Amino acid sequence: MRPNRLRERFDAGQAAVAGWLSFDSQYAAETLGHAGFDAVVVDLQHGPFHVDAAIGLMQALSATPAMPMARSPSLDFATINKLLDGGAWGIICPMIDTAGQARELVSACRYPPMGMRSFGPARGVLYGGPDYFDKANDTIEAWAMIETAEGLRNLESICAVDGLAGVFVGPGDLSLALGLPPTPRWREGPLAEALDRILQAARAAGKRAGIFCTAKEMAGDMRRAGFDLIVPGYDSLYLSSAAREWVAAAREG
Amino acid sequence: MRPNRLRERFDAGQAAVAGWLSFDSQYAAETLGHAGFDAVVVDLQHGPFHVDAAIGLMQALSATPAMPMARSPSLDFATINKLLDGGAWGIICPMIDTAGQARELVSACRYPPMGMRSFGPARGVLYGGPDYFDKANDTIEAWAMIETAEGLRNLESICAVDGLAGVFVGPGDLSLALGLPPTPRWREGPLAEALDRILQAARAAGKRAGIFCTAKEMAGDMRRAGFDLIVPGYDSLYLSSAAREWVAAAREG
Amino acid sequence: MRPNRLRERFDAGQAAVAGWLSFDSQYAAETLGHAGFDAVVVDLQHGPFHVDAAIGLMQALSATPAMPMARSPSLDFATINKLLDGGAWGIICPMIDTAGQARELVSACRYPPMGMRSFGPARGVLYGGPDYFDKANDTIEAWAMIETAEGLRNLESICAVDGLAGVFVGPGDLSLALGLPPTPRWREGPLAEALDRILQAARAAGKRAGIFCTAKEMAGDMRRAGFDLIVPGYDSLYLSSAAREWVAAAREG
Amino acid sequence: MRPNRLRERFDAGQAAVAGWLSFDSQYAAETLGHAGFDAVVVDLQHGPFHVDAAIGLMQALSATPAMPMARSPSLDFATINKLLDGGAWGIICPMIDTAGQARELVSACRYPPMGMRSFGPARGVLYGGPDYFDKANDTIEAWAMIETAEGLRNLESICAVDGLAGVFVGPGDLSLALGLPPTPRWREGPLAEALDRILQAARAAGKRAGIFCTAKEMAGDMRRAGFDLIVPGYDSLYLSSAAREWVAAAREG
Amino acid sequence: MRPNRLRERFDAGQAAVAGWLSFDSQYAAETLGHAGFDAVVVDLQHGPFHVDAAIGLMQALSATPAMPMARSPSLDFATINKLLDGGAWGIICPMIDTAGQARELVSACRYPPMGMRSFGPARGVLYGGPDYFDKANDTIEAWAMIETAEGLRNLESICAVDGLAGVFVGPGDLSLALGLPPTPRWREGPLAEALDRILQAARAAGKRAGIFCTAKEMAGDMRRAGFDLIVPGYDSLYLSSAAREWVAAAREG
Amino acid sequence: MRPNRLRERFDAGQAAVAGWLSFDSQYAAETLGHAGFDAVVVDLQHGPFHVDAAIGLMQALSATPAMPMARSPSLDFATINKLLDGGAWGIICPMIDTAGQARELVSACRYPPMGMRSFGPARGVLYGGPDYFDKANDTIEAWAMIETAEGLRNLESICAVDGLAGVFVGPGDLSLALGLPPTPRWREGPLAEALDRILQAARAAGKRAGIFCTAKEMAGDMRRAGFDLIVPGYDSLYLSSAAREWVAAAREG
Repeated sequence: MRPNRLRERFDAGQAAVAGWLSFDSQYAAETLGHAGFDAVVVDLQHGPFHVDAAIGLMQALSATPAMPMARSPSLDFATINKLLDGGAWGIICPMIDTAGQARELVSACRYPPMGMRSFGPARGVLYGGPDYFDKANDTIEAWAMIETAEGLRNLESICAVDGLAGVFVGPGDLSLALGLPPTPRWREGPLAEALDRILQAARAAGKRAGIFCTAKEMAGDMRRAGFDLIVPGYDSLYLSSAAREWVAAAREG
Repeated sequence: MRPNRLRERFDAGQAAVAGWLSFDSQYAAETLGHAGFDAVVVDLQHGPFHVDAAIGLMQALSATPAMPMARSPSLDFATINKLLDGGAWGIICPMIDTAGQARELVSACRYPPMGMRSFGPARGVLYGGPDYFDKANDTIEAWAMIETAEGLRNLESICAVDGLAGVFVGPGDLSLALGLPPTPRWREGPLAEALDRILQAARAAGKRAGIFCTAKEMAGDMRRAGFDLIVPGYDSLYLSSAAREWVAAAREG
Repeated sequence: MRPNRLRERFDAGQAAVAGWLSFDSQYAAETLGHAGFDAVVVDLQHGPFHVDAAIGLMQALSATPAMPMARSPSLDFATINKLLDGGAWGIICPMIDTAGQARELVSACRYPPMGMRSFGPARGVLYGGPDYFDKANDTIEAWAMIETAEGLRNLESICAVDGLAGVFVGPGDLSLALGLPPTPRWREGPLAEALDRILQAARAAGKRAGIFCTAKEMAGDMRRAGFDLIVPGYDSLYLSSAAREWVAAAREG
Repeated sequence: MRPNRLRERFDAGQAAVAGWLSFDSQYAAETLGHAGFDAVVVDLQHGPFHVDAAIGLMQALSATPAMPMARSPSLDFATINKLLDGGAWGIICPMIDTAGQARELVSACRYPPMGMRSFGPARGVLYGGPDYFDKANDTIEAWAMIETAEGLRNLESICAVDGLAGVFVGPGDLSLALGLPPTPRWREGPLAEALDRILQAARAAGKRAGIFCTAKEMAGDMRRAGFDLIVPGYDSLYLSSAAREWVAAAREG
Repeated sequence: MRPNRLRERFDAGQAAVAGWLSFDSQYAAETLGHAGFDAVVVDLQHGPFHVDAAIGLMQALSATPAMPMARSPSLDFATINKLLDGGAWGIICPMIDTAGQARELVSACRYPPMGMRSFGPARGVLYGGPDYFDKANDTIEAWAMIETAEGLRNLESICAVDGLAGVFVGPGDLSLALGLPPTPRWREGPLAEALDRILQAARAAGKRAGIFCTAKEMAGDMRRAGFDLIVPGYDSLYLSSAAREWVAAAREG
Repeated sequence: MRPNRLRERFDAGQAAVAGWLSFDSQYAAETLGHAGFDAVVVDLQHGPFHVDAAIGLMQALSATPAMPMARSPSLDFATINKLLDGGAWGIICPMIDTAGQARELVSACRYPPMGMRSFGPARGVLYGGPDYFDKANDTIEAWAMIETAEGLRNLESICAVDGLAGVFVGPGDLSLALGLPPTPRWREGPLAEALDRILQAARAAGKRAGIFCTAKEMAGDMRRAGFDLIVPGYDSLYLSSAAREWVAAAREG
């Protein structure tokens, strides 16, 4: 089975950097997959598509150096199973509020007896190879998003869940949960405190910590702060920010 | 009928700036359409899609400030007709080598007696309004790409074709035609001379000149040189260049 | 943010009239969007498509005078969130049986602290504008369908849910719930009584009432009865009834 | 092989009535296919789709009482071949201007030695049965559209082409060709004369005549005039005209 | 309403044989539908698609001799309803662990008062005919998959659920539940015992028993053992095993 | 640039064996791509799809050991260009009748000055790597199909065209051209003679010869006869023949 590229980075003492895909275009997926990321996360929560398109995007990513991952739309067992069958080497699940939910997430990502994942690996075994079943439980990672007040309250018990790879911060929702505007101010106030608390809780439990960023400065800050998995931004942000620069260059350059 | 936004720019003495879409994602189309361009060109020549996807992309663009245009895959009458029926307010046609081909292009974009466009405006009339038929011949523009040795030889006669809005330079193919590498060196040598000649020929014939660029500096240079329609780059270039910057910010920032 | 067109009608003392889309064709969506409706509801419950197609249909509707709405397939938080991110200005949710479910529905449609909607407005902010986050909670409407025996029993408590825009009658299922055939007989018997009761309960609670109709006469009757939101029929009914008339005209006209 | 339903009508001394599909929705296709038509024509010329969608639409039609036909986007050999492989039992080809083009059309629809159709019937043989190859040349019909000034000039020689099933009038384009507005005035003036001439020429050559109509009255008139194949209108016209009636019923009924 | 073909087999004292579709290709669906199966099951659990594609696949199957069925991705009321509206004549639901879940499954497949299915049969009524509502409850079948330890424990109570057509074995997951490797060894040990127990329990309750096989020998064995519904294998297994044989024939034949 | 896998076989003195894809399913593409073929040819001539689907299929193939190739629908410059931009490492073009057509085919596959291919390699450069432009002319192969009477007459001049990789036999159409039934009888009579003549002509001109087969025995025979590129069958044949065997095993095994 193809190895988990995030772990290769982690094992080398480095942060992993992942792309984020909300365009339902396989060509866009390939473009991101060749842009230097260790992995690309197909976003089924806020991206305008569901599993059909998502699996196609993972097929496109499978021909690039980036490892395919998916953010599931919710903690839905069947959807997570299908994303894994479709070739996701990791699942990031939004709005994990309790340890029980985190256990459900882990269970959905693992074959018995460690979990309840249903057998039928479809293209997983094509992409992964004939030893897929033997190695899937050890290779595929489940990440729980911490982004609500309740999730923050239950942080330590979530981090303690066996088999969970790490916690992943959604700073927009977390800001809302803290009574702040959704554009994250990561360097100050309650959000900064929460980020620090999450990072410490993950480390204390021997888990990884990841974060979604919305500014280049934030991405660098978070890596320096010690986050293991950095998502610096997302495709539509990249496209629109670059396009605006090029428009300006054409009009005024 | 909605007016032609390029002409509004031209009439104001300004260059128009257009986006270029090769991602078959309607969300990417909307993202580009809101990024400050006057128009967005859906590329059916090198983009990985044909008319089905292209019309969907124009539907998505129709809800943005950018005017939908299309680069047809070739001088194919039926395809150009369908792109117009699908709501393109302008056609850029590749590899126009002769005045006869330029006349065919114009004819495909105009209803009789000025051309041979077939009647059946489908979503054109929905997007454009009930006066679509009356105004389409005057509103919709046909642009001929000059990008081959033969096209360059016949430049003046192409520019003289009645009803043609302008000539549009494909600098990659034109470079190849001139025996140069495909990444355009626009400031020097035979390509610079060709660009100047095309611009002069267009002006002499009372036509517009447009150009596809592949660098911010080129976009600014071309505007200053006098090109009327500037395409500063394209979506996959925007996405990959921005993504690489953000990856670097995450890894080293 | 673009205003809610239903409210403009309501504020003017008029009923709003909405189209209903079950064809997964963006051209059909545009055709309906230009047919005189105040809004068009994309039907994910009985229409043969899920969110991928639905968001495309809302993209197409975004270029028409009709406001995009969606009927969610069920009270599923993640799906409702994605439809909102995809540009729905209103959600109609089937089979709301209890006040608790109605509160969940409202919560899924509102950002904290008024609800639990996750932040990531994707094309909502493109269609709606930069003030989307500030105004979304006030602009977007949640409608609860009353169509089961249990929903009818809990009608008053459902109507009392804070933040709910209104109740919407599904007369086919409601007829089945009342032991009647699914084709609604709205002028007589238990269905007529139920419709009257629903209308009164909505008014008493300061909420709007809407209804799905299956005959022209029903649409007029329901408007006169005082329903605020009238869905006179649906696309496949419109298409098949008109087609049959035209076939008859060709064969016998 | 399933018989040609148009011929069953013709043999019974009746006109055939066909639907016209420009919505790229298989559910819309089925809706039309069950509305009483003898055949439904998938329109690749002005409909917003190409062969991929068209074959899906024919698959959907294959489960209805209506026989699948297609209007090709142009006289393109490869496209016509693929539509036939995809299960079209008849091809209507736009803008046939000369007898030579009509012969090309017939050739594209027939296996050697009667034509040049390439062998590879794909789903044609699934839908048609194992005797598809033996009967296809005799069952599948090619119709040539008469809609240009040149086509009208060459009417008699076109009608004389061996193997052509009939001529089919596109009255919008034909009106433009005659210097008239595109909305056909079929009862008077040059268009009425042209229609009469076409009908007589078809009969004189032992061929069928068909026509696309845009009003119920026109459909009845054309049948009475003797046209064999009547297309009374098209899906978007059916949908929008019915929707407008139902909106009016809701607002004012 | 079209009859249930499985029952025709059962009533004739024969086993029914069903195809299994995980390719999201309508042409593949038709190919399977013409290969001799009594029914074809569209697999939404492990197949790389959701309802949009699944309904298209059922549309394609509707023109073949095989009856369309679907395996739902999970016990999700809304999804099962939409598959039925989309023309499924039977639902196989994975991971039914309790009698309560089996009752939910039956309820989702039946209109009131026998269940809670929502009215809106969409293409069901087109494919099935105008008596669809009257006959759907009696024609459409719900099958519960037994494939977990809990399901096996509750086998008898599941079999006793009124309205359930039968139980269907997923031998891969069942093997995992029994602590065995996922490739089923059906002739020996705990799996053989479990299969026998399931068959007996179904018979004792007057229900049918079905099974998914992964080898030709298994399919024959299971028919002989008395299973009523045999799924001998699945499309990707058929394709890959045949392709390997033909590759060998080309390289070494 | 990734090397051409056919040549690796040829250079090793072996025949290459290619799959043939007419299912528009990326999962089917991957299944074929992992079945032991050296390459898989996406068939746009008789397969029910055009370039949009074809490029997706090549994206899926790009993650498998099989090299992506395409059969173009016809000798259409723009389509062939787009298939190359989409990542085809070889083009098989149907119905090449003359040396002039063969030269057009070669020209469409090569950048200037060796041909007229337009620059814009899109995903070709992603899949192939940054040296794509430098190596594409030498790596990508153009194969001309010999399948008509005219093609057979011009065989030697076609084989002599510089830059052509080889000739490829379409035995169904060739049989029709020879007055035979379309199911090829390759061991006897005029077809056997023609195959021999084609093979000799290719060798004499230093070109490769390939052939499409429809039986395992034919595939072995053709390899032994000396054909370099063997397509033993195609996906729908593989699927239907295997499915019929498994149905028989279930019913009678």
